[in-house]
Amino acid sequence: MAQTRQLRLGAFMRPVSLHTGAWRYPGAYPDANFNFAHLKRFAQRLEGAKFDAFFMADHLAVLNMPIEALKRSHTVTSFEPFTLLSALAAVTDRIGLVATASTTFDEPYHIARRFASLDHISGGRAGWNIVTTSNPDAALNFGRQEHVEHGERYRRAREFYDVVTGLWDSFADDAFVRDAESGLYFDPLKLHVLDHKGPSLSVRGPLNIARSPQGWPVIVQAGASEPGRQLAAETAEVIFAAHADLAAGQRFYADVKARAVKAGRSRDDIKILPGAFVVVGDTVEEARAKRAKLDSLVYYESGIASLSIAIGHDASGFDPDAPLPDIPETNASKSGRERVIELAREEDLTVRQLAQRLGGYSGLAFVGTAKAIADEMEEWLVSEGSDGFNVMFPFLPAGLDDFVDKVVPELQRRNIFRREYEGSTLRENLGLARPANRFFEEAPVDRRKAV
Amino acid sequence: MAQTRQLRLGAFMRPVSLHTGAWRYPGAYPDANFNFAHLKRFAQRLEGAKFDAFFMADHLAVLNMPIEALKRSHTVTSFEPFTLLSALAAVTDRIGLVATASTTFDEPYHIARRFASLDHISGGRAGWNIVTTSNPDAALNFGRQEHVEHGERYRRAREFYDVVTGLWDSFADDAFVRDAESGLYFDPLKLHVLDHKGPSLSVRGPLNIARSPQGWPVIVQAGASEPGRQLAAETAEVIFAAHADLAAGQRFYADVKARAVKAGRSRDDIKILPGAFVVVGDTVEEARAKRAKLDSLVYYESGIASLSIAIGHDASGFDPDAPLPDIPETNASKSGRERVIELAREEDLTVRQLAQRLGGYSGLAFVGTAKAIADEMEEWLVSEGSDGFNVMFPFLPAGLDDFVDKVVPELQRRNIFRREYEGSTLRENLGLARPANRFFEEAPVDRRKAV
Repeated sequence: MAQTRQLRLGAFMRPVSLHTGAWRYPGAYPDANFNFAHLKRFAQRLEGAKFDAFFMADHLAVLNMPIEALKRSHTVTSFEPFTLLSALAAVTDRIGLVATASTTFDEPYHIARRFASLDHISGGRAGWNIVTTSNPDAALNFGRQEHVEHGERYRRAREFYDVVTGLWDSFADDAFVRDAESGLYFDPLKLHVLDHKGPSLSVRGPLNIARSPQGWPVIVQAGASEPGRQLAAETAEVIFAAHADLAAGQRFYADVKARAVKAGRSRDDIKILPGAFVVVGDTVEEARAKRAKLDSLVYYESGIASLSIAIGHDASGFDPDAPLPDIPETNASKSGRERVIELAREEDLTVRQLAQRLGGYSGLAFVGTAKAIADEMEEWLVSEGSDGFNVMFPFLPAGLDDFVDKVVPELQRRNIFRREYEGSTLRENLGLARPANRFFEEAPVDRRKAV
Repeated sequence: MAQTRQLRLGAFMRPVSLHTGAWRYPGAYPDANFNFAHLKRFAQRLEGAKFDAFFMADHLAVLNMPIEALKRSHTVTSFEPFTLLSALAAVTDRIGLVATASTTFDEPYHIARRFASLDHISGGRAGWNIVTTSNPDAALNFGRQEHVEHGERYRRAREFYDVVTGLWDSFADDAFVRDAESGLYFDPLKLHVLDHKGPSLSVRGPLNIARSPQGWPVIVQAGASEPGRQLAAETAEVIFAAHADLAAGQRFYADVKARAVKAGRSRDDIKILPGAFVVVGDTVEEARAKRAKLDSLVYYESGIASLSIAIGHDASGFDPDAPLPDIPETNASKSGRERVIELAREEDLTVRQLAQRLGGYSGLAFVGTAKAIADEMEEWLVSEGSDGFNVMFPFLPAGLDDFVDKVVPELQRRNIFRREYEGSTLRENLGLARPANRFFEEAPVDRRKAV
């Protein structure tokens, strides 16, 4: 049977890994947060493996956690995403570069400019992960005493998206004629002044940058709430989702694709990529041992705090080396509580191991041989659980190298992942159309590469 | 006589050149505004010539000019400076990277993060050109109907500087111990929460980025007004000045260095680099012919508009090919008017040539052989007109190549310009001290390279 559906793979990156124990793992680069040479190597390896995108998460504050936990975490500080991805653009050729930027704490003129500029510099490889920034500590760094409430953040985000995309369309694709003989640099009939005046934003335009290779950088979102899903269904081209299992993935996939169709879009206009934490071993036992080793490096008290929240009960008095005791019903979320109890039973975890799992990473994970991981990824793909994954490496560089050296070839053998990039832009590789300019007729065909 | 004072050379860059006729000059790259390969080549050539810094100007709006002039100008649109300089950081090793960023239309947390991040990525080569943004059109792109008035912009700029530098000091230089064995990533006693609450800004901090290689990126300013000079004398480490001639340069130099001393700083803590437009020829006639050719490519009506403003009299009826006629006294600035009349007389310019000079570039210029240009630069240096120059290339790539191939070796022969970089950071090359952290004791000696 010909397998034509193709996996899309993003790498969800923090310089040291998103796992809080990763900086202590043997062979890790604890200084990667500020060592560009490591990041360059990671991006080049991912490009060699034909990943669709390098995806950089972000925070607008030092993470909000007790100092005893904070001082043990490498996730506090790192490069700012825009400077990092712009630098990586200069040392890579094909991999997409997705930066997170906030609609609550930044200005649409700045965001539109920077992403268009990154798209020009990278030859069409920029993506914008739209976030509304839920961390209340961020507000305090931007002159606000109170965080903006959720509904208001989403209303502003939608308007912000309209303004940014409108600014990206300030010039027609063929506006810049640069005719040295006559002295005409651009055709003024192909310049549009946006003149937006809305409830949250007032932005005149035009943007002082030519329309970029992709027309618009790729729009990425991660919202899982009701307004988040709706915003994504209307505007997102890539969704970074978080699911506990395949069944949850399938429900989300069906829901969002249906919403997109209802909003007048095609199902293929949105690629849904759940985050997946991938630990590769030559045997399943080796993979599990690597994960257990990694979890054991998590600060125990942080883990216990996470466990207490999850079960709605103070876990600090539990025997760390015993199984999870029976705990009374509480008013913690029933599903979250049941998930934790089930996790402990399934993997036969002690209280310490369970706590450290929760304090490290406890979302969707594929832990096993390359073949078993490829089996799971293929199952998600063919059963419409996802269009691919945002891969999270447990530790770097070994976790990334394992995935690139062992899992990617297995996916390629199954013909569900590319051996060569299809095009030169992120849109072309993801199979996304280049957006028409809302203010101007289509550009000549030679400016719009086939996708 | 041993000549120990050394010239500092910045390159004041717009991708096609700041001269409005440059994109039409033979051999120019009219598409350089969005062609990264050209910018990479320029930066690498400047680094090969041991320039101190690549200096990127900026605008937060399409330039405010009539559409008939605008459509003929390449200065309308280009890369955003931060993305460009970050990309250049990845393909250069020693040259400084100075980006313009506005204190009026951006947030100190963002600015502090991006410059610190660029400093990390580049290994200590970032500089911040602080501007308050005088273009009133910019306000309309940032939700304001009226531009912020001058005094208020400068008060905010000063507070903004205090906040940004305070955020840069959020962590002691030796805060990050990264002891994998004990699990301690950073020492919490070496983290400072700024908690700034001032008249214009309220920013809690800490910055989510380690103190950068230079401690603080180099502070650059260009303000020439009374509050601009005072702000610069108190805070700037490099001043990008604009002077008509050496005498004006000497007055400014003496004034600002005296203000700096009065503010408790040393004269050497500020490097004053006037902008200088440099046209190189094998003979002075050839250099002048190049400039005349370049000026002839300026849109005549733009030039006439500039001339009319300069003399305070409508010049559109003048015979373009005749000398400047006698014009009645007007209420235009007397010094500006006299400068224009003198310029026409000195160089024997027709109305057309004069208009095109004003519409292109009419500030400080060195036009002649490499030897004559080196003579002028040396005279400015030894007579305390400046500490060096921000060189403006009339057209690219030829104007840059001429300077690098002909003028730089002449300066090196005179021992007033380096043959090798003195250090690895911009501060080390400029001879500027690394700022102490205002909240913490000095870091161990091995973290503070000698300058």
